[in-house]
Amino acid sequence: MSASTSTQTALSIPPLQNDQFLRACLRMPTDFTPVWLMRQAGRYLPEYRATRERAGSFMGLATAPDLACEVTLQPLDRYALDAAILFSDILTVPDAMGLGLSFATGEGPKFASPVRDEAAVKALRVPDMNQLKYVFDAVGTIRRALSDAKGVGRVPLIGFSGSPWTLACYMVEGGGSDDYRLVKTMMYQRPDLMHQILAVNADAVALYLNTQIEAGAQAVMVFDSWGGVLADGAFQNFGLAYTRRVLSQLKKTHNGHRIPHIVFTKGGGLWLQEIADTGCDVVGLDWTMNLDKARAQVGHQVALQGNLDPMVLFASPEQIQAQAKAVLDSFGRPRNADGSHAGHVFNLGHGISQFTPPEHVSALVDTVHAHSRTLRD
Amino acid sequence: MSASTSTQTALSIPPLQNDQFLRACLRMPTDFTPVWLMRQAGRYLPEYRATRERAGSFMGLATAPDLACEVTLQPLDRYALDAAILFSDILTVPDAMGLGLSFATGEGPKFASPVRDEAAVKALRVPDMNQLKYVFDAVGTIRRALSDAKGVGRVPLIGFSGSPWTLACYMVEGGGSDDYRLVKTMMYQRPDLMHQILAVNADAVALYLNTQIEAGAQAVMVFDSWGGVLADGAFQNFGLAYTRRVLSQLKKTHNGHRIPHIVFTKGGGLWLQEIADTGCDVVGLDWTMNLDKARAQVGHQVALQGNLDPMVLFASPEQIQAQAKAVLDSFGRPRNADGSHAGHVFNLGHGISQFTPPEHVSALVDTVHAHSRTLRD
Repeated sequence: MSASTSTQTALSIPPLQNDQFLRACLRMPTDFTPVWLMRQAGRYLPEYRATRERAGSFMGLATAPDLACEVTLQPLDRYALDAAILFSDILTVPDAMGLGLSFATGEGPKFASPVRDEAAVKALRVPDMNQLKYVFDAVGTIRRALSDAKGVGRVPLIGFSGSPWTLACYMVEGGGSDDYRLVKTMMYQRPDLMHQILAVNADAVALYLNTQIEAGAQAVMVFDSWGGVLADGAFQNFGLAYTRRVLSQLKKTHNGHRIPHIVFTKGGGLWLQEIADTGCDVVGLDWTMNLDKARAQVGHQVALQGNLDPMVLFASPEQIQAQAKAVLDSFGRPRNADGSHAGHVFNLGHGISQFTPPEHVSALVDTVHAHSRTLRD
Repeated sequence: MSASTSTQTALSIPPLQNDQFLRACLRMPTDFTPVWLMRQAGRYLPEYRATRERAGSFMGLATAPDLACEVTLQPLDRYALDAAILFSDILTVPDAMGLGLSFATGEGPKFASPVRDEAAVKALRVPDMNQLKYVFDAVGTIRRALSDAKGVGRVPLIGFSGSPWTLACYMVEGGGSDDYRLVKTMMYQRPDLMHQILAVNADAVALYLNTQIEAGAQAVMVFDSWGGVLADGAFQNFGLAYTRRVLSQLKKTHNGHRIPHIVFTKGGGLWLQEIADTGCDVVGLDWTMNLDKARAQVGHQVALQGNLDPMVLFASPEQIQAQAKAVLDSFGRPRNADGSHAGHVFNLGHGISQFTPPEHVSALVDTVHAHSRTLRD
């Protein structure tokens, strides 16, 4: 890392033992392709399950900064990952709005008070960030835990939030859904109400992410997990417009350092150009997108993050290696013909499955590092 | 219809009271945009639920030709639909392979003997079509019921099958899935076994569709409901390659009449060009695809079918009308600048929801007919 660290000039990157993730996000030269995994701190790790057991409940874990820090660091201790991501849930913001988030065993999230009528919509407000203090405390705790004696971090810490539309899906449906009937009914029937929800969500998400940045998050990611269920047209009006409203309010720097903004829309490949045009630094891609084509389309505007099918991790280590190499080769050598650099952050195309054999992740991470070094000059 | 019916020359279309659907599939001039709805015979109709009740079970309904005919015709009696589609299930073929299909109340399909190991894969065979006689009998019964005294049908009858990959998903998972872990694990871990399943499925689907054509189906549709969950690369190798294997074996004509082939891949918008290149006549699109862009890309090769979000039907009739017009306007006037015609069959982007208010469907169908007439010269 020393070589590239010494060449950082134009863009200000914080001092880190491993800054490859931030460099890739900002399309600066890298020594290898950095890798992290969505949901890398999670149920597939026995040490996570042990901490979760001690916490008593998922929200007990998410709301205890020391425990959230503990599980955030667990995958970094096992694997040579190039970024940490705050352990939290994407639904903390609507919970802070008073919707009453809970997780029943073996089921997904549930809201006690879903937003289904005009009165509920009108009552929505950007929550007081004190309600989310546990998140910002966790960010600070993790940053300290990642730092060495001189205050230099091992790897950068990513903060995150659900996108306004994705939060609205859960807020109206009251939990997960397989057809998005309630939220789409409101969208098609009462677009005025949907726009109100999304406006409040956008402002809340922006404030939430900015407060994470102030607490120490060194990059932030907007998870638009359900943008891909929208129709063309509706995606632009109800999804992307509010992601843009978030991005327009986000801090681009903190303490003089650039804070990369990542937008991930599952199923958003058809709208890649429009997502890149939001002004984000990095676009996350799921496995349906061809990385070579994506780079040709928007690689001069944004870095790309992704995009291995998480189910590849159920194959043998040799097969995982072959698939990881194929993803890296599809992106190609980061150096462009004109000497500039394209940015690639290796990731899965969606969260890692809870059933993943933990030892398979090592095969993936190590292959990404080793093979991507061969794609540098 | 009289004007355009009299101009049919180059392509042979069977005599029908309403041949607009077949004409649109074959990119011949039409008087209006024909419309039918995926799952148009289904639970949202009280008359369907009454017949289903009498049948005792879903499979009881699907396997009784008279009852399958009855529910096939129900939506035609309510709405001015331009095509009938055989009432059946996409999983009849693996059921005939001996996997033991059943439908538990309130749940999706289940196979008693899912295909999960090498022995089960090796035992798979193209089933004897006598096992599926109830389907072909239903096709004949429906054709007779659609015919007037002179043997001229009201509208054409569409036959269908699941795609090889979509069938494989159910066969390996044993039912529905939200992560496709088992089928993808086999695909990534034992691609040889997956190719064997898909080869048998493709040959079985081709034979099944050809036998439907011989029994009277006037167009056939391959439902690749789960092609969109595949990674780029895997879609081509495990999805499209076997859809192509089906298409290459399908009858293009029967009794001198052209039989249009429709391929619908939910979530397949990124692969539109490759799907069109299979040689099918019509590509079905879900609501994420922009029809204007799709037509510009492949409208000179294939007709397009789609693509209203089924959830639009939960809005008010006025809102449904506006959204239906927007879909028609997005496709644009069928006549091309060079005088040739592009083909558009209006449909939903996926099956109609069981919770749809039946009266809302009238607003949709009538608007499609009225507005599309204004898009002709």
